[in-house]
Amino acid sequence: MQFELTTDYIEVLKQAIAGSNDNFLKSKLEDLHAADVAGIFYQLDFEEVKKVYRLLDDETAGEVLLELDEDLRENLLASLSTKKIAEQLDQMASDDAADVINELPENLQDEVLSQIEDIEQASDIADLLNYDEGTAGSLMAKELVSVYAHHTVAGCMEEIRKQAANVENMYAVYVVDENEKLLGLLSLRNLIISEPEKKVSEICDEEVIVVKTNTPNTEVAEIMEKYDLVVLPVVDSLGRLVGRITIDDVVDVIRENAEKEIQRMSGISEGAERNDKWWRSIRARIPWLLVGMGGGIISSRIIGQYEAQIKIQPEVAFFIPLIGATGGNVGVQSSAIIVQSLASNTMIGDKIGPKLLRELGIGFINGIICSLLIFGYNLITSDSLALACTVSISLITVILFASFLGTFVPLTMNKFKINPALATGPFVTTLNDILGITIYFLVGRLLYGQF
Amino acid sequence: MQFELTTDYIEVLKQAIAGSNDNFLKSKLEDLHAADVAGIFYQLDFEEVKKVYRLLDDETAGEVLLELDEDLRENLLASLSTKKIAEQLDQMASDDAADVINELPENLQDEVLSQIEDIEQASDIADLLNYDEGTAGSLMAKELVSVYAHHTVAGCMEEIRKQAANVENMYAVYVVDENEKLLGLLSLRNLIISEPEKKVSEICDEEVIVVKTNTPNTEVAEIMEKYDLVVLPVVDSLGRLVGRITIDDVVDVIRENAEKEIQRMSGISEGAERNDKWWRSIRARIPWLLVGMGGGIISSRIIGQYEAQIKIQPEVAFFIPLIGATGGNVGVQSSAIIVQSLASNTMIGDKIGPKLLRELGIGFINGIICSLLIFGYNLITSDSLALACTVSISLITVILFASFLGTFVPLTMNKFKINPALATGPFVTTLNDILGITIYFLVGRLLYGQF
Repeated sequence: MQFELTTDYIEVLKQAIAGSNDNFLKSKLEDLHAADVAGIFYQLDFEEVKKVYRLLDDETAGEVLLELDEDLRENLLASLSTKKIAEQLDQMASDDAADVINELPENLQDEVLSQIEDIEQASDIADLLNYDEGTAGSLMAKELVSVYAHHTVAGCMEEIRKQAANVENMYAVYVVDENEKLLGLLSLRNLIISEPEKKVSEICDEEVIVVKTNTPNTEVAEIMEKYDLVVLPVVDSLGRLVGRITIDDVVDVIRENAEKEIQRMSGISEGAERNDKWWRSIRARIPWLLVGMGGGIISSRIIGQYEAQIKIQPEVAFFIPLIGATGGNVGVQSSAIIVQSLASNTMIGDKIGPKLLRELGIGFINGIICSLLIFGYNLITSDSLALACTVSISLITVILFASFLGTFVPLTMNKFKINPALATGPFVTTLNDILGITIYFLVGRLLYGQF
Repeated sequence: MQFELTTDYIEVLKQAIAGSNDNFLKSKLEDLHAADVAGIFYQLDFEEVKKVYRLLDDETAGEVLLELDEDLRENLLASLSTKKIAEQLDQMASDDAADVINELPENLQDEVLSQIEDIEQASDIADLLNYDEGTAGSLMAKELVSVYAHHTVAGCMEEIRKQAANVENMYAVYVVDENEKLLGLLSLRNLIISEPEKKVSEICDEEVIVVKTNTPNTEVAEIMEKYDLVVLPVVDSLGRLVGRITIDDVVDVIRENAEKEIQRMSGISEGAERNDKWWRSIRARIPWLLVGMGGGIISSRIIGQYEAQIKIQPEVAFFIPLIGATGGNVGVQSSAIIVQSLASNTMIGDKIGPKLLRELGIGFINGIICSLLIFGYNLITSDSLALACTVSISLITVILFASFLGTFVPLTMNKFKINPALATGPFVTTLNDILGITIYFLVGRLLYGQF
């Protein structure tokens, strides 16, 4: 069953490492899944990691390498000879091996590649290195089982036995013509339940969903999700089968994209990794802080216009944070919902109207609730009716405008093919801050004249 | 290849629907994947949807039903007779059918269930309805292929041919004893490449990763992701095989969880759906607005303490939004990164120290950059050195505190088993707003005394 990592377990391992008790360590580790070994590595010092890593056989070592974070993997690779790296790449699936080579310093890449013993594996990897990052080509593996359409089921089984040694997860068999052009797909289930003398062409599915090598990762993920696929063939521009993408790689893409979207919403520019170098983290975060500061400076200019009024009625300044915060919160709520609607397929057409109306409706009701509450609070705690009216009237106005901006900005950005997720978070918050302050002081000037 | 939805295509369909050109519509729709038909439905009026839906055969109709949003599915089901619904459920996988029944009004559930013709399917569905939502039991399907350990490969193939009719996606065969206790797993690949006379027990993998029926969905997703599984067997408390979970359902769980996390970060309480009823949307959003308002009221009280100072130096009020916004932004950035670290497996131990130090370090450098910039700005635009010093010194202090809170709050919540994602967004923003205002006016009082 599942392995559970405990502090005691780590303690025992650490002592065995310190005592160089290699046989004991090997026996402890040999039954573990690579993902669990990787989990253990995070609890050890780097020197300990290196010692344990040397004890693993090439195949396990390669698998563990793939489970590690980029940072730790990089350090570990730097401690290995190019010969040792080549040996481990030889054991990996071609797509994983290509990913690892891509992370190596450029001057080492060719050296490692030339030391891979299996020529076919080396050429597969070299091939995969040509595809741009973020495309189906960079995501696919070259290992697959293909048969010709004129094969019988029995012949096909024979062919599979020959080819399957290289293919660890085989979900389907691909049917091709003599030019490697993809004709159809044959599920292992159909293969098993069909009569041995049946022709492959009779039982294969010719309506195959495929992607091209240059299809973007995100589109690959969408297609596999939409059609519930576990494996997706990749063809070149001539329709020839060149590789296949499995769902586990796509799950990683989905997870990474979700993480990136949350980072974008939190005002962290693209490309920041969790365990990144300090200076990269700083560079990823400072732009949105500066945008926020810019907004703060504009707000200060607007408030500055009302300097005389503040001198006479300083209580107006008390509610600046409340107006700003509520406007920001409403804007983020609306934009988050709109961005999610845009990402799903429920909003293909140009149905901006209903969405806007809905958000404004929700904003209006929430605005009334919030305004009434703060009106009650101000009536009780302050004797200025002008202040109570100013805060409540501007609050509901700000909430309505924030709902509008939170809806309108991502929809407009989407229309102009800009990622609407950029609109959620700092951008909408900053915009709403400025707008909120403007409305608040404008309403204040109007109302204070009246009382 | 993939189907592309165009406005022209929709126009043609709409005309055919208006003209009741049923044969034409059938020919247009019959080759489409259910997901594509669902996509078309979103572009039609509900009356049109109903007309098209009636033209689909039971199997396709059921598949399309599953692809739709809860809202549209609910409306469509309400327009069907219980008999018709039962016919479609009969064609679905048991887990999908159970999900659909769960969405029906309670008084209809038993009626529909009793009208399902296939008794085995009806009993499978009734069985699945017993498991709590959000557990492996509610996610699993009953359809699977199992064989006994003493079978030979040839006998196993025979058994698969018998059982496979019910199982659409068969990735593996489960090996059980006479009490249905799960003993091992046999991949179709190994089955195909093994000699016919081999015993199943010799070629099956006995180290099977399983979950129990009451394992939470999120844990199921983590396990399938961690170990790169496409299918995961579910056992009861006696270790008997009761179902299996496939990766496509888990991809949906991953996607939904990512959406929920973004909603939580945006101050939208759990349970809100994109196309929810208005009052549910309002109820989901108002709590965090009130939290933000509460924070605003506390801020107003703090600023109120400095009323006399504001009367004399109203320029202090100008920078309230800047201080609040920057503190909020920094806090959200830090907490987003911490929450993501906690969600991944790179942070199992109690390594709070290094994380905190890292965030404080990044905060310090960003703080210095922002403070220097705003200092320069204030020196140029204002003649008050006291103001320039107050803003810059409090800004860097606020950024440091915000980094600390953004790191410390989610880590602490995690320690007490509260979802740290709740800390990102409105909570940390509100906390930082209050803290920022406190620091700003405190620094102001101290410094203005000095100049």
